[in-house]
Amino acid sequence: MANIPYKTYLTEQETPKQWYNLRADMKEQHAPLLNPGTLEPLSAEDLYPVFCEKLSQMEVDETTRYFDIPQEVQDYYKTFRPSPLVRAYNLEKALDTPAKIYFKFEGNNTSGSHKLNAAAAMAYYAKEQGLTSLTTETGAGQWGTALSMACAFYGLDLLVYMVKVSYEQKPFRKAVMETFGASIIPSPSDTTEVGKAILAKNPNTGGSLGCAISEAVEKSMSDDKCRYVLGSVLNQVLLFQSIIGIESKLAMDKLGEYPDVVVGCAGGGSNLGGLMSVYMQDKLLGKANTRFLAVEPASCPSFTRGKYAYDFCDTGRITPLAKMYTLGSDFMPSANHAGGLRYHGMSPILSKLYHDGYMEAIAVEQTKVFDAAVLFAKNEQILPAPESAHAIYGAIEEALKCKESGEAKTILFGLTGTGYFDMQAYMNYNEGKMSDHIPTDEELAQGFATIPNTGK
Amino acid sequence: MANIPYKTYLTEQETPKQWYNLRADMKEQHAPLLNPGTLEPLSAEDLYPVFCEKLSQMEVDETTRYFDIPQEVQDYYKTFRPSPLVRAYNLEKALDTPAKIYFKFEGNNTSGSHKLNAAAAMAYYAKEQGLTSLTTETGAGQWGTALSMACAFYGLDLLVYMVKVSYEQKPFRKAVMETFGASIIPSPSDTTEVGKAILAKNPNTGGSLGCAISEAVEKSMSDDKCRYVLGSVLNQVLLFQSIIGIESKLAMDKLGEYPDVVVGCAGGGSNLGGLMSVYMQDKLLGKANTRFLAVEPASCPSFTRGKYAYDFCDTGRITPLAKMYTLGSDFMPSANHAGGLRYHGMSPILSKLYHDGYMEAIAVEQTKVFDAAVLFAKNEQILPAPESAHAIYGAIEEALKCKESGEAKTILFGLTGTGYFDMQAYMNYNEGKMSDHIPTDEELAQGFATIPNTGK
Repeated sequence: MANIPYKTYLTEQETPKQWYNLRADMKEQHAPLLNPGTLEPLSAEDLYPVFCEKLSQMEVDETTRYFDIPQEVQDYYKTFRPSPLVRAYNLEKALDTPAKIYFKFEGNNTSGSHKLNAAAAMAYYAKEQGLTSLTTETGAGQWGTALSMACAFYGLDLLVYMVKVSYEQKPFRKAVMETFGASIIPSPSDTTEVGKAILAKNPNTGGSLGCAISEAVEKSMSDDKCRYVLGSVLNQVLLFQSIIGIESKLAMDKLGEYPDVVVGCAGGGSNLGGLMSVYMQDKLLGKANTRFLAVEPASCPSFTRGKYAYDFCDTGRITPLAKMYTLGSDFMPSANHAGGLRYHGMSPILSKLYHDGYMEAIAVEQTKVFDAAVLFAKNEQILPAPESAHAIYGAIEEALKCKESGEAKTILFGLTGTGYFDMQAYMNYNEGKMSDHIPTDEELAQGFATIPNTGK
Repeated sequence: MANIPYKTYLTEQETPKQWYNLRADMKEQHAPLLNPGTLEPLSAEDLYPVFCEKLSQMEVDETTRYFDIPQEVQDYYKTFRPSPLVRAYNLEKALDTPAKIYFKFEGNNTSGSHKLNAAAAMAYYAKEQGLTSLTTETGAGQWGTALSMACAFYGLDLLVYMVKVSYEQKPFRKAVMETFGASIIPSPSDTTEVGKAILAKNPNTGGSLGCAISEAVEKSMSDDKCRYVLGSVLNQVLLFQSIIGIESKLAMDKLGEYPDVVVGCAGGGSNLGGLMSVYMQDKLLGKANTRFLAVEPASCPSFTRGKYAYDFCDTGRITPLAKMYTLGSDFMPSANHAGGLRYHGMSPILSKLYHDGYMEAIAVEQTKVFDAAVLFAKNEQILPAPESAHAIYGAIEEALKCKESGEAKTILFGLTGTGYFDMQAYMNYNEGKMSDHIPTDEELAQGFATIPNTGK
């Protein structure tokens, strides 16, 4: 092996003390969140009933470039950070590519994913405001687990609305959250008005992320000491996830490396937005010309086949409207789609950057994603989450292009999580029972029909 | 927080390049392995039909103090090592103890445990000898997963006999092994003579580790390019696991720390033997007076209630005899016992050290173990394996003694693995359905009756 170590960890002294707000360097801001009734832009104060105050302020902040990470959050980060920057020597060898492949591995914590970075901050700010409980939703369960852990650490109660089909299929995910003290309700449920309405319309529904969001938001508003938190899509989430990119850049700086291309999986955009943050800053400031590649599931192709429009963030249509790439808030990926990355929308920041040509995106069928996952697992000895394997697929594609062209490009991808709770999908794959479903244009049209006409 | 960082990682340059063989410093050697037919001591050559040659030589080596770690194994270790040495500041605070608690976390890899340290070496030496396949057994699945990963890395076929009850209860463990390319057979099976005999006697048996060992050994002997490997108990395993202790000591040296007490869970002894290795060396050489504490399940109490005698390593009675603390090769822990640590015997090296007064041992009921696991999880944000939680329990007990006495002792324990595949046990615990079973003297007597009378 070469002089570059297999893994690079920052020391405790070297770890970032600030988050980076990409909006401060964007040439143009994304369109603001709108009140769904009046279609007027929302201020931080307008968000206070839903989000805690500090998070509301961060959500709309277009100018503050860096936010200090509170000491209490830095202390909590120490339990699961820094994450390693890994040179994928074994994958490079297996691919016989001249490319240099690096990945930032965010899955080495009990939540199994990068989501803990944001959960930590959100639970802390809720505690600081004197709140006693939080509500949220979870699909595959990574986010719910992360927030359960953070709430256990800061001493907050947590109520998680878990998409019913996941609740039933993933009892062990539920058990992890309960071990950390969270209460879990399958969604839709009769604990909210929106849940009751959805059940009345479709008693046998397996639920959706959008529906669980509606329930969690409604529930939080019934208690003054409770607020709602969301683990992706939002600007505040990308802010907290910037720690992935900042750490990556500090570690690569130590190695004298800089990525030619940054690859991430994209569902709501939290991981890719965080990983690429400071590299995109360089690009926006004209210091680098890095390519940014989002890899999304062909079964839920918000970037590659969605519309750039104002849409609701939830199925129940009680949240603000966000301008983003969307498949329509009623869109549901096919039931055979494994893992997460099933959200109908996309981070407004990433949507704007994609719309303005700063990023690329591809959509991949899941059998190809699992091919990449297993090749990676055998060589790099980490079992990736299906979500993360989308990024692996993208990185492998880039490395194979280098093999063809003979270029020794530097590829950085985000390995967001581990697949220990996704073994049913791996079993299906191992047994040749995995199938793909690419939505037809007609199926997409049904989702598009639910996008409201705001005229904006 | 103090100046000592929360986590300490060695750099690639600092990582150990040799394993340490504790036998080279023991005042007295443990009694040798015996041929079960002739009761004569076994040489390395005698073991060649079962183990590959290098491993056989290591198994009986009493004098070589250090073995070089082959470069190929060092390179493989880089994919999952070094492991962090963690200062458990949050647990200390929760316990309000003056003790300083450190743990060495070996669970941050896809196998979820320390077992990969030995699997790496064993697969490498098998490959080096020109073998094409290995057989082994697995109970809870940690060892089988580790060996699956190592065999995938070195390009060896692997056949795993999985205790039938685990095979049925843990399909996801099986799926992980299959993802890495291993073949899994529930044991007892009709693929071996010993399996057929056990099935004839008891068609509905759920199997046992001892029985799966018998099958794996028999199967390996039917193919000249195949050998058997065992993930615990053996001297070679303790040798490979010494990397845990060596890394711990190097990291603690950097911090200016030295443990007053070293705590580990004990099933077959591989983790505790590895963790304590170089600290026990200091004790044997009169350089330190560290206490060593083994924590075992009350339901399988080899150290605390077993006999120190020659016994078979397997239920089928086809392996050599080892002088060790044993409950009898027919002993089966109660079905309500969660996780691993269910082996009837104990490492001959640890057995000898315990017999000679160099170590202490306690046995703990599993509900108390899970109390400790959940307290740890909420504060240190790692979900431990039930096995590992025995060590947590022991460390907490020591820390609480310090609280009473006011002493600021330094405690080091081994956190061997994560509990992602043990959620059924956590669910039982969370729901108040976990029970304990301490074997009665009569139950133990039944096991003792199966210990052969060798007169030695």
